[in-house]
Amino acid sequence: MRPFEEGEWVLLVSPEGEKEWISQVGRSFSTAEGTFDLKQLIGKVPGSPVQSHRGSRLYAFRPTPADWILRGVKRQTQVAYPKELAYLIHRCGIGPGSKIVEAGSGSGASTIAFAFAVGSEGHIYSYEKRPEFSELAKKNVQGFGLADRVTFRVKDISEGFDEEDADLVFLDVREPWLYLQQAIRALAPGGFVAVLVPTTNQVCETLRALSPLPVVGTEVLEIFHRPYKPVADRLRPEDRMVAHTAYIIVARRVLPDEDYLWPPDSC
Amino acid sequence: MRPFEEGEWVLLVSPEGEKEWISQVGRSFSTAEGTFDLKQLIGKVPGSPVQSHRGSRLYAFRPTPADWILRGVKRQTQVAYPKELAYLIHRCGIGPGSKIVEAGSGSGASTIAFAFAVGSEGHIYSYEKRPEFSELAKKNVQGFGLADRVTFRVKDISEGFDEEDADLVFLDVREPWLYLQQAIRALAPGGFVAVLVPTTNQVCETLRALSPLPVVGTEVLEIFHRPYKPVADRLRPEDRMVAHTAYIIVARRVLPDEDYLWPPDSC
Amino acid sequence: MRPFEEGEWVLLVSPEGEKEWISQVGRSFSTAEGTFDLKQLIGKVPGSPVQSHRGSRLYAFRPTPADWILRGVKRQTQVAYPKELAYLIHRCGIGPGSKIVEAGSGSGASTIAFAFAVGSEGHIYSYEKRPEFSELAKKNVQGFGLADRVTFRVKDISEGFDEEDADLVFLDVREPWLYLQQAIRALAPGGFVAVLVPTTNQVCETLRALSPLPVVGTEVLEIFHRPYKPVADRLRPEDRMVAHTAYIIVARRVLPDEDYLWPPDSC
Amino acid sequence: MRPFEEGEWVLLVSPEGEKEWISQVGRSFSTAEGTFDLKQLIGKVPGSPVQSHRGSRLYAFRPTPADWILRGVKRQTQVAYPKELAYLIHRCGIGPGSKIVEAGSGSGASTIAFAFAVGSEGHIYSYEKRPEFSELAKKNVQGFGLADRVTFRVKDISEGFDEEDADLVFLDVREPWLYLQQAIRALAPGGFVAVLVPTTNQVCETLRALSPLPVVGTEVLEIFHRPYKPVADRLRPEDRMVAHTAYIIVARRVLPDEDYLWPPDSC
Repeated sequence: MRPFEEGEWVLLVSPEGEKEWISQVGRSFSTAEGTFDLKQLIGKVPGSPVQSHRGSRLYAFRPTPADWILRGVKRQTQVAYPKELAYLIHRCGIGPGSKIVEAGSGSGASTIAFAFAVGSEGHIYSYEKRPEFSELAKKNVQGFGLADRVTFRVKDISEGFDEEDADLVFLDVREPWLYLQQAIRALAPGGFVAVLVPTTNQVCETLRALSPLPVVGTEVLEIFHRPYKPVADRLRPEDRMVAHTAYIIVARRVLPDEDYLWPPDSC
Repeated sequence: MRPFEEGEWVLLVSPEGEKEWISQVGRSFSTAEGTFDLKQLIGKVPGSPVQSHRGSRLYAFRPTPADWILRGVKRQTQVAYPKELAYLIHRCGIGPGSKIVEAGSGSGASTIAFAFAVGSEGHIYSYEKRPEFSELAKKNVQGFGLADRVTFRVKDISEGFDEEDADLVFLDVREPWLYLQQAIRALAPGGFVAVLVPTTNQVCETLRALSPLPVVGTEVLEIFHRPYKPVADRLRPEDRMVAHTAYIIVARRVLPDEDYLWPPDSC
Repeated sequence: MRPFEEGEWVLLVSPEGEKEWISQVGRSFSTAEGTFDLKQLIGKVPGSPVQSHRGSRLYAFRPTPADWILRGVKRQTQVAYPKELAYLIHRCGIGPGSKIVEAGSGSGASTIAFAFAVGSEGHIYSYEKRPEFSELAKKNVQGFGLADRVTFRVKDISEGFDEEDADLVFLDVREPWLYLQQAIRALAPGGFVAVLVPTTNQVCETLRALSPLPVVGTEVLEIFHRPYKPVADRLRPEDRMVAHTAYIIVARRVLPDEDYLWPPDSC
Repeated sequence: MRPFEEGEWVLLVSPEGEKEWISQVGRSFSTAEGTFDLKQLIGKVPGSPVQSHRGSRLYAFRPTPADWILRGVKRQTQVAYPKELAYLIHRCGIGPGSKIVEAGSGSGASTIAFAFAVGSEGHIYSYEKRPEFSELAKKNVQGFGLADRVTFRVKDISEGFDEEDADLVFLDVREPWLYLQQAIRALAPGGFVAVLVPTTNQVCETLRALSPLPVVGTEVLEIFHRPYKPVADRLRPEDRMVAHTAYIIVARRVLPDEDYLWPPDSC
């Protein structure tokens, strides 16, 4: 396991595991428990403890993408959640070498999750029409060290995407139904289109817009995570949980045949 | 998108998406709707339709790991489910280049999911004490074309694992609490140990066994997937759903310090 | 506890509790385990065992409304479920003496639950436009011995209800949004209107129709019941569960004031 | 609908329904929106608006048991929740005339729900060993006007209950497994024993203690309520929900036969 270097991002976890922060090796970091000089970590391996001047302790880890998305990214938007991103990556067969088109870039949460999964041979094309969000996403992706796997494009996707053979087109925008034709043109045959929306009305609009398009296997899904208090003698779920983030809609592009008036502008 | 070749595995999906099968390009395949000559697919790209002699139609895709686990693997055991595997891969930061130790091999479902995610630079060490299950898992992994990323070991893990620097040790065995010390010795510092168990009693035993060990950030979690009928004008969840597969337990290895009597046999 | 009499309905439960049936004291009743002569039960108290000619055993109970709804009623429609009815009764303060208006009668499931809760001083007015369903509901209510607490009306509710001071108006019809004005006219001030619908589109239509009406405190709710296998050493949820029956919508009628154009036809 | 009288408890609901309080007719009541003179309500019917000196408005209702439990009772303990109480009342066939034994009295939440449901012909026997809690429960029950339906007993239930023919014995105590024999002796044959416990370990202990006792049909259940934002054009669940309150365990008493060594002390 490679030791920590100065300037590297680090996840700090309290001994009971109930608190977590992202900071930087070499900095000074303060909590209610005291001040931690993170120069201590230079040359140490992940999993090492750091001591505050008062003797309290934290443990230092190299952040995973999920840690970075939850604790590290600066956000100005609602971000896609790890629970949905994890499922999409697995369900759509995203892995080393995959090519993904996404819109919008938002705060870069999905961009980071995808860029990590596709490895150095894959690539993400991330579209965003608001330049300031594209910049924010870029900074968050750079912070996690994955910038060379991502091309950010500041562009209105109603004009279509520049790519044509994506394995996945991911739409995390307010009105995804307006861009499904563009999404499907950007997909390789057999590729997946995936949509995240928070309301049932948006699910209905998306399903309506999908129905004439050349896709099969449409799924609509909610994912719940229910955490437990990790206490052996009094095992019970936490009192409260996240009840809703978004509905997932996934479908696979098929080749047009006589059933589909496709591409629409050829009619 | 690379065209289908003779002998390759193929996922067949009905036009309404409600039925799916795995078959092989070049074979003859029969459903209630007729017989499909899958020689049609040679040279076609994924997403292409195939016709039966009666004119009914299916769509052909290259299977993802999730498709393969659900439809392709021959199973003699309960398999780990995509919903839990997807989360573990994301949460534990598994990606290109990761090194994973798992026990038992079972039917190879988790092996396939992990081997896909770690790419050609990663590796999986899969332990199983029953030779016939190790063989079954191997065949299922070979079927998906990932055999060169996996080392199968037929061995009782109570003696410990041969590896020392895994990013993740995954225990999907009946009594995981018996092997947690071995798991932690096999982990790189900062690495994750993850356990899947179906009963609350097993969760309690696992938490008890974890408590003296050098780990932090222990999480216990349930994941629910709630599918909807994809009908725009009558949107509603399916009538029934999977209510339970397994509890997930995850923790991160830390370096021993004065709090831990570790390694135990040095006391 | 009053002993069983000939002709009375009886709930029979298998020793392990996994099977339940409704039959009649005095009859002969057959299962895969043998034939039970239910004359044995005359004069016995609830909780008594009955033996088959082969020596297998069942336990006999006086059915609760929930038992009767799930096992006893003859049904030609989807019935309202105990989990939603139980909540509505409690949440809307239904108890001895309450007056309820409902539509449609359906198979009488909600009628039975309500008629039981309101006691001999309460009353249910149950509307249904299809005479055959009204008859079916009546028979099911009579079977449970509550017919004197219910007035069945075969009538199209678009013309309005005959009552004016109900504590609860319950709409279990396909298009409840068409009858909300009629429902509110039938309510005592401060009373509850409650709606059960299976799709999100129906929830939206109902909320749209409620918004100009004199109600406050509108709630939309889903209820899940997750059963466990009752095994002390291997406690775990059942593998599958009911994922969806209906959405509940509840609101309270307020007195019109300057904000409401009410009653609508007075404008 | 009977008009409000001075001194009567009243539920006040904000126009958007997002806030609720319990106060008393005749008092002065203040919120961030202003001060409301509740003398206005004397002689008005439920559902009437009250105005603050600043012109803001609330609506006044006669509280249901659920309103009273959630907003009106003074509590010094975790209270049983309406979602579980509603189900128990329905599932166990509690209605006008039922006789219930419960322990402990706690803050009186379950006592109120039961006393309301059983009407003036039913009765609740509520046991509590801590006199101060018994007093608190009594005050909360009196506040809702149901004191004549409840007998409070300050007594350690390990000595047994004084009743013998209850329709339901409800145990909401820390170690219910210690009192199950006593509970079953207090039940009429065919009656229900019901237990609420927050941890899985308590469920296991309860199931172990139930297994030699003369009961059948044991159920273990969790209930979830998932509220939605009531907005027609953007329908979606609330962001967060209650994830856990308690597990419900219910079983029915049967008459002893040769299988049961019962009563235990007769062996």
